[in-house]
Parts: sequence; structure tokens; C-alpha cells
Amino acid sequence: MTGKTRSRPGGRSTRVREAVFEATLAELVASGYTAMTVERVATRAGVHKTTIYRRWTTKDDLLVAAVRDLVQMPVPALDTGTLETDLRAYASGIVFVLAGPAGPVARTLLSSDAARVPEIARIKQMLFETRRPISTRIVARAVERGELDAGTDPHALIDFLVAPIYFRLFVSEEPLDEALITQVSIATLAAARQGAFAED
Amino acid sequence: MTGKTRSRPGGRSTRVREAVFEATLAELVASGYTAMTVERVATRAGVHKTTIYRRWTTKDDLLVAAVRDLVQMPVPALDTGTLETDLRAYASGIVFVLAGPAGPVARTLLSSDAARVPEIARIKQMLFETRRPISTRIVARAVERGELDAGTDPHALIDFLVAPIYFRLFVSEEPLDEALITQVSIATLAAARQGAFAED
Repeated sequence: MTGKTRSRPGGRSTRVREAVFEATLAELVASGYTAMTVERVATRAGVHKTTIYRRWTTKDDLLVAAVRDLVQMPVPALDTGTLETDLRAYASGIVFVLAGPAGPVARTLLSSDAARVPEIARIKQMLFETRRPISTRIVARAVERGELDAGTDPHALIDFLVAPIYFRLFVSEEPLDEALITQVSIATLAAARQGAFAED
Repeated sequence: MTGKTRSRPGGRSTRVREAVFEATLAELVASGYTAMTVERVATRAGVHKTTIYRRWTTKDDLLVAAVRDLVQMPVPALDTGTLETDLRAYASGIVFVLAGPAGPVARTLLSSDAARVPEIARIKQMLFETRRPISTRIVARAVERGELDAGTDPHALIDFLVAPIYFRLFVSEEPLDEALITQVSIATLAAARQGAFAED
């Protein structure tokens, strides 16, 4: 690496934006959606509330922007040469994201009280729609390599890969660890080869 | 069937108990844990609040009793002769339960606000502990039949079977249908045969 490959959009405006988004998500997780207010976010971010209201007119606007920013962080779907390693890489990416700040945010957003708010339902929808093209790419590469039948449903396959990760996060509360990544990759590969995700 | 195999514990006391439990769970789902009160449950059940307080001294006592009663309904883990049909029967049972009144109750209980209450955390724990002996039985039978290696982790296998069902309920909100039951059964069987759930 000989230098920066891309200049970062910096400056005070970006720093304020980052601080506000970070405070928004922290406040969401700490207080829950209902109790969260722009005032509390402003206090946490160390800015005046008018600084926030100048850019985002409501709490929901702010939350939508902060979550959009968070989910911009792409989970890599690199071509690693085989379906097994592609699945492992993607599962690792999801674990990395959910083991970080996004995990508690996802838990809070998906909780029943927050899910009753239309804006939150839309964010949730968006979160899962961003996965669709990734699933399609991973499976299309495996079909091209001759690893899977052309009739494999990419969304069913990737849902199966990630479901045990979400199950641990929301339901069983067991650790998101390397052993889990190995297990979901091997299990999903075996199931896919057996034709479990054949489109009807 | 020539008659009742077992006399039902009936009478007014049982009917009141059933009405109160039903109202408790309905109130939990409708109002959420925080807003739920014994008064509201009493109104919904058509009983005086002292009728409830005579048996359950707090809201949490009542909720714990109602949820315990709900989860008493056992998901069948019948011996159907093969691992594939045992998995299908168990997945069908879980879908049957979660597609009924228990689904919204589970969603509400597992939501972040409710999960902060120690009693609710204990119920959640209990819900998943009841699954452990069932997982062990299903896998032990498959090992006896020579369908699986003796070193198969029963909890990993059954978590994998049920995770896509919970994923649909909590995350993707897609339907809990027959196609899902078929998919999880076939996929889990294929993964188990491939040794994906080998104990380390």
C-alpha cells in the first residue's frame, strides 16, 4: 500500500453526521424506539438539537438515515473460487456485522414494539432486500462453476445459511463464533448439493 | 375411539383459569409487556381483578403462569420410523405452534423491551430448555437406526431445523408453510448425513 486509494469525505460536517448517527443508534439500543428522542440523541452526540433538526425533521427521519448509513457497510460477497468458501466468507461477514454495533440495533429494530412503526417496517424490509442481489451472485457463480444445479433458489439457500446466526442472536443467545460459521457453511453446502433448495 | 381415555379436569375454576390465561396472552400481544396490566387482563377475561390477584400476586406471576401453560402444549416428537419423517413431524409441530397464538406471544416475549425483564428472560430460557430432551430423543433414535453417526450433536441439528422457521417469523416475515417444512427437513437431513453437526 503506497497511499490512500480514495480521498475520504472529511471535515466538520461529516464528523457531526457520524457523531449524530452513532448517538442515534446508541440511544435506540439504550432507550428503545419509543423512549428515544432527538433531545437525548443531541445530548449524547454533544451537539445542539437544532443541529439535528436542521438536517432531519423528525426522529424517524433521523433513525432511517442512521440505519441506512449503518447498512451501507457492505457484507463482502467476494468470489473466493468455490461455493464452500463463498458461503464461509458471507457467513463470516454477517457474524462480523451482527457481533458489532449492528447486532443490538437489529435486535431493537426487529422487536415487536418498534416493528409496529411503518418507517421501521420499511427499514427492516430494506435490510433484507439488500441481501437479495448478493444471494443471486453467490449462487450464480456456483452454477457457472458447475457446483450447483441451475434451478437452485438463491434466496432459500442464503436464508438457510444466515437463519442459524439470527437464531442465536435473537432466540438462543448462544455465541456467534467460528464454530457456527463452519457449521452453517458445511450444512448449507451439503443441503444445496442434495437439492434441498430446488425451485419448484 | 370408544370413549374418553382420561377425565378432563373441568369445572368453573378451570374455565376461569383458561379465560384468564387466554386474556393474559392476548393482552400481552395487543399492548406489549410494559403497557399490560392485571386490570386490563381482568376486563378482557370478564372477571374481577381480585379473582386474578387471589391466585397470582403480580403481573409477572400471572404472565409466567400463562406462558408456562401455553408451552405445556407439547410439540410431538413421535417415532415415525425414519429420521426424515421425524424431522418433518417436529418441524410441522413447531410451525403449527408458531402459526397459532404462540407465534405473536413468542414475538412479543423475545422483543428487546420484554427481554430486559428477568422473569421474561427466564421464560425464554425455559422455552428453549424444553426442546433439549426432544432433540436428544430424535437424534438418539436415528443413531440407533444407523441413520446418523453417534457423535452427532442433537442440539445443533435441531437448532438448524427450526432456525429458518424462526427466521421467517421474526425477520423475513415470509409464510410458515408446507414448502418450508419440506425444505428444512430435507436440508437438515442432508447436512446431518454429511457430518455437519459432528460434535468436536
